[in-house]
Amino acid sequence: MQRLIVDMDGVLADAHAQFLAFDERDTKRRKTLAETLDKSELEISPRSNEHILLPGFFRDAPVIGNSPEVLERLNRQYDLYIVSAATEYPTSLVEKIAWLAEHFPFITWHQIVFCGSKKIVRGDIMIDDHFKNLDYFEGRTLLFTQPHNHSANPKHHQRVHSWDEIARLLL
Amino acid sequence: MQRLIVDMDGVLADAHAQFLAFDERDTKRRKTLAETLDKSELEISPRSNEHILLPGFFRDAPVIGNSPEVLERLNRQYDLYIVSAATEYPTSLVEKIAWLAEHFPFITWHQIVFCGSKKIVRGDIMIDDHFKNLDYFEGRTLLFTQPHNHSANPKHHQRVHSWDEIARLLL
Repeated sequence: MQRLIVDMDGVLADAHAQFLAFDERDTKRRKTLAETLDKSELEISPRSNEHILLPGFFRDAPVIGNSPEVLERLNRQYDLYIVSAATEYPTSLVEKIAWLAEHFPFITWHQIVFCGSKKIVRGDIMIDDHFKNLDYFEGRTLLFTQPHNHSANPKHHQRVHSWDEIARLLL
Repeated sequence: MQRLIVDMDGVLADAHAQFLAFDERDTKRRKTLAETLDKSELEISPRSNEHILLPGFFRDAPVIGNSPEVLERLNRQYDLYIVSAATEYPTSLVEKIAWLAEHFPFITWHQIVFCGSKKIVRGDIMIDDHFKNLDYFEGRTLLFTQPHNHSANPKHHQRVHSWDEIARLLL
């Protein structure tokens, strides 16, 4: 059984939507998608470093697309792990576990990994929205499209735009 | 630089001492070392499953031996990661981060990994007190002696009894 490593923020959890929502609370204006393309969180919102620390930022994040349905099917065919670079934000850890339990109840604690660097992760396939994670992975790598990586050259990674596309590729 | 994977409970943090201390609160008697050799936590204390969930169980654990001094030196010579199977106990995660910050302040969040299964960890050397973790590791494996593994055949793993011994082997 192949080991599949799936990221949380920007792949399962819509962290981008949370950054926009928290920015809108400050500025009273919702930024458009065009204003956010190819920009880091800090470029989009100068207070994003504070927002990410607020209670509920991770707990209330919307789910991306039909990831629950697709991941439940993948979970039957792959040795699945959810790997999130989260130890920078200790208070996020409990929120992330509660969020997974709500939206992905088929994921057990055995399958959850919180780390700082993903360099130490071993597997066959990785789905992630950040090059800093994919670049060090020795297996097959899928770059999940997010506004921050919209125009980036995917390099040797395979770009995927949706969970439907992942389903077609991996199921 | 070689990647060194170090466990927390039973290698850095004296979880065994915590189990004995919490058991003593219930039973009003401190179990002797002889009473605990080669026994699981649940065999030592039938309420250990409850104790591990109590606030402070991980936060107040004693440090094992001179692990802070040895690990600080190892941290300069190795690509060091602290990997703890902890996602079964969500509330332990923040306690473990605070505990590391207090006793091992040179460890950054980049170097901390909380997981369920350690099968996904990639590295060159692993120090752990449990066969379930060492057996799946593809690199060099050091079995750290703890009461629960006292008489176990170390199999293909190398048994180490103290942080001084680890220092002699790895520094």
